[in-house]
Amino acid sequence: MSQQKTSRPKARLPRGFRDRSAGEIAAERALIDTIRKVYESYGFSPLETPAFEYTDALGKFLPDVDRPNEGVFSLKDDDEQWLSLRYDLTAPLARYVAENFQNLPKPFRRYQVGPVWRNEKPGPGRFREFTQFDADTVGSASPAADAELLMMTCDALEALGLKRGEYVVKVNSRKLLDGVLESVGLSPDDFARRGIVLRAIDKLDRLDRKGVEALLGNGRKDESGDFTKGAELQLDQIERVLKFVSVSHFEPDMRTSDWGSNFKFWERDFGNTANGAAGLAELKAITGILKVCEYDAARIRLDPSIIRGLDYYTGPVFEAQLTFPVTNEAGETVVFGSVAGGGRYDDLVARFTGQQVPATGISIGVSRLLTALQSRGLTGDVEPLIVVLSMGDAAQSFAIARELRAAGLRAESYVGTKKIPDQLKYADKRGAALVVMEGEDERANGKITIKDLKRGAEVSKSVESRAEWVGARAGQETVDRGKLVEKVREMLARKG
Amino acid sequence: MSQQKTSRPKARLPRGFRDRSAGEIAAERALIDTIRKVYESYGFSPLETPAFEYTDALGKFLPDVDRPNEGVFSLKDDDEQWLSLRYDLTAPLARYVAENFQNLPKPFRRYQVGPVWRNEKPGPGRFREFTQFDADTVGSASPAADAELLMMTCDALEALGLKRGEYVVKVNSRKLLDGVLESVGLSPDDFARRGIVLRAIDKLDRLDRKGVEALLGNGRKDESGDFTKGAELQLDQIERVLKFVSVSHFEPDMRTSDWGSNFKFWERDFGNTANGAAGLAELKAITGILKVCEYDAARIRLDPSIIRGLDYYTGPVFEAQLTFPVTNEAGETVVFGSVAGGGRYDDLVARFTGQQVPATGISIGVSRLLTALQSRGLTGDVEPLIVVLSMGDAAQSFAIARELRAAGLRAESYVGTKKIPDQLKYADKRGAALVVMEGEDERANGKITIKDLKRGAEVSKSVESRAEWVGARAGQETVDRGKLVEKVREMLARKG
Repeated sequence: MSQQKTSRPKARLPRGFRDRSAGEIAAERALIDTIRKVYESYGFSPLETPAFEYTDALGKFLPDVDRPNEGVFSLKDDDEQWLSLRYDLTAPLARYVAENFQNLPKPFRRYQVGPVWRNEKPGPGRFREFTQFDADTVGSASPAADAELLMMTCDALEALGLKRGEYVVKVNSRKLLDGVLESVGLSPDDFARRGIVLRAIDKLDRLDRKGVEALLGNGRKDESGDFTKGAELQLDQIERVLKFVSVSHFEPDMRTSDWGSNFKFWERDFGNTANGAAGLAELKAITGILKVCEYDAARIRLDPSIIRGLDYYTGPVFEAQLTFPVTNEAGETVVFGSVAGGGRYDDLVARFTGQQVPATGISIGVSRLLTALQSRGLTGDVEPLIVVLSMGDAAQSFAIARELRAAGLRAESYVGTKKIPDQLKYADKRGAALVVMEGEDERANGKITIKDLKRGAEVSKSVESRAEWVGARAGQETVDRGKLVEKVREMLARKG
Repeated sequence: MSQQKTSRPKARLPRGFRDRSAGEIAAERALIDTIRKVYESYGFSPLETPAFEYTDALGKFLPDVDRPNEGVFSLKDDDEQWLSLRYDLTAPLARYVAENFQNLPKPFRRYQVGPVWRNEKPGPGRFREFTQFDADTVGSASPAADAELLMMTCDALEALGLKRGEYVVKVNSRKLLDGVLESVGLSPDDFARRGIVLRAIDKLDRLDRKGVEALLGNGRKDESGDFTKGAELQLDQIERVLKFVSVSHFEPDMRTSDWGSNFKFWERDFGNTANGAAGLAELKAITGILKVCEYDAARIRLDPSIIRGLDYYTGPVFEAQLTFPVTNEAGETVVFGSVAGGGRYDDLVARFTGQQVPATGISIGVSRLLTALQSRGLTGDVEPLIVVLSMGDAAQSFAIARELRAAGLRAESYVGTKKIPDQLKYADKRGAALVVMEGEDERANGKITIKDLKRGAEVSKSVESRAEWVGARAGQETVDRGKLVEKVREMLARKG
């Protein structure tokens, strides 16, 4: 035995991957269908690219990844070319557009939904395969394209059942951020210091004002004693940067301010820089459209603290957040936070063609959004199941199940080989709403029995044999064979 | 320039992979939804396993693969364990069942649909990523489980719009085949010769009787001069094997015979072998159920030439074929052939646990079936698209598109920056059914224009400027602004 046993593979999921069962799959399908209907109604068309891309075509745009090839699953094809599994849906889109540019309508507006893979260290709730739902407009430099994505995101979240006030889509502009840097005398080409400033702003949610000040200045030592290098800004420069972001942070009364006061404030301080003026003009064009279409600042908010990690953004950046509290894994009450993000990336197609193609997009994290909806009770029910027991003649129970299906009901015939009490336990485990039984006596008398499992499950625990079970009539009704469908419908309706 | 250019990656699809566009995606989604509804109605529940499995857990069950690791995409994880992308949905199911056996209802009936990957040499119409739709029943040795899959397959094909006579589900039994081998004195444990015999029978569709005789005997030299080793059977043994398969081949008048005459014929010749008797009993139990449920031999046919390549089948094997002619890539008219296959595999879970768990399943090749349905005109239409041109004020065209969407129509606002004639060309390229335009004059007068693109596309070719275009009134109507939705509906209805 031992020798044979050691040669057997162990049945185990690969590290960082997971199986998903009926309830979650049905809920995710409903979620994806809802978003798809909204995106389709806006005239976006689906595209599907393969799981694999050539590694050089994918590029290296993962956030928080320093070493080459880290973060992606790669392997060598038998012609010695490196293949990688896609880590997002944007890089494959850029490849697709560059490859098919001549034949595409411009602007090209597509949505894509599917799994992406990240070769990262898995952790609790952190998987190496997850689903993204992206919408992108390629070939339009117009802020109208950005505005459309913002409105479409709001519509999708509301179509999923979220109410006004339960979500907010936040908008910032990389150009405006560069204007801020410009105004303090920092060149946007000083990538190292620019990066430190952006990361400092990105940490506004986690650090207090003093912590961010330290990161903008001489650096910060955290509680563990680790030191993070600062941007080496002077006090007055730090003040200016914090003034910019203070619209949404540190000064809570400013958070609900309308777009107009945001613009007034920023125009005065950063409007005279080239980048700042360009960023403001784009944001104004966006909010102008939003206003006419009746999307207000309570739904789509200007928020200077939105950074989004990816290097490739060149203009407006977006983040959709859910604002209601949930309990996290540590048992703390926290705001749910980000479920989607994106922005304008005008240089991604140029990687291939050398020619700039303006593009903008937003990506929904499907699994995270699903978790949020489930916590809100916004995911639908599975259709009730009827299990027809197999009592002697399998063909007979099939015929009964078939009759129920023909009436539009969801019905299975038990296909195992176990005894009736075990079949009842099976139906219970399957979560069946009703059980249908046609014993020999019943068949002879033209009768059939339907059992409500909620009560039946309790009874079946104490039941050992068919004889006892027949006596246990809790929640069960015997009717004329011809009235099967009618009675099943009635009992399902009674259950609600 | 040259230096920069050479450092750019080339935008290209990986070898053997493909992008899929809107029409195919919509058609495949409709196909999958239809099958899913049928499978759900039978009480099957969805399961999703990850793209990756540990290589040892997947096992090596690919047909026509001799070298280890050939046929799968594999890579080493950073903990030195080998991962492979799934090459079908059955091996991951076996892993899942072995891992979760205690908690599953038995029988466990699940369906799974998703991509699988094969690291094979790509060819015309032969891709390295494709979609399978599987249904399996694990934990039931009853022929009722096999019968259910056969009926469900018929129902799925008919739900997709195929008519009786356009498809046939063929059934054979590995046990019956072993009975045939037993009857000619060949041990089922003589794997090498057994394999040669099975492969020879599998070639009945492609070779004539003489070719198969040669493969069963001393071997066969094909037209290219390549020699295939034979099973070294004697003449009378060959005769016996061919008599078995002749039910469906070589004797066309036997092809439409009912199950009863099949059984009578086989019983006489092979019923006295242990394996043959067991196989016949199972097939009889299956057809008994089919008969009561009114699935006849025209839909589900016993066919002894069905082999199915995979080594792991242990009992009944199935193959669904489409019977109508299509034109293949070489321009020849051929019968469409196989779109699904499966069978009983009682040993697959035992690979992990050492304990036999009876199982049976069927897998639909989604892409192949989709091709067949498209050749039959059985794939649905995409909802008509309305493009609202952007004439000066993007916000205004958004508001119009929004109004149309609120009325349940599919409407996009043009988000590019091009002139009106180019916008019309864009709408044409998008295949838009109607175009909506609200120029400044029209807005001032409370009017709006709707254009039927079928005619508009022709006109737009000769149109260079807005002035000329306004004059070109082919297929276009100007109505009161308040009548937009009403008029759009009317024009869509007129197009049919």
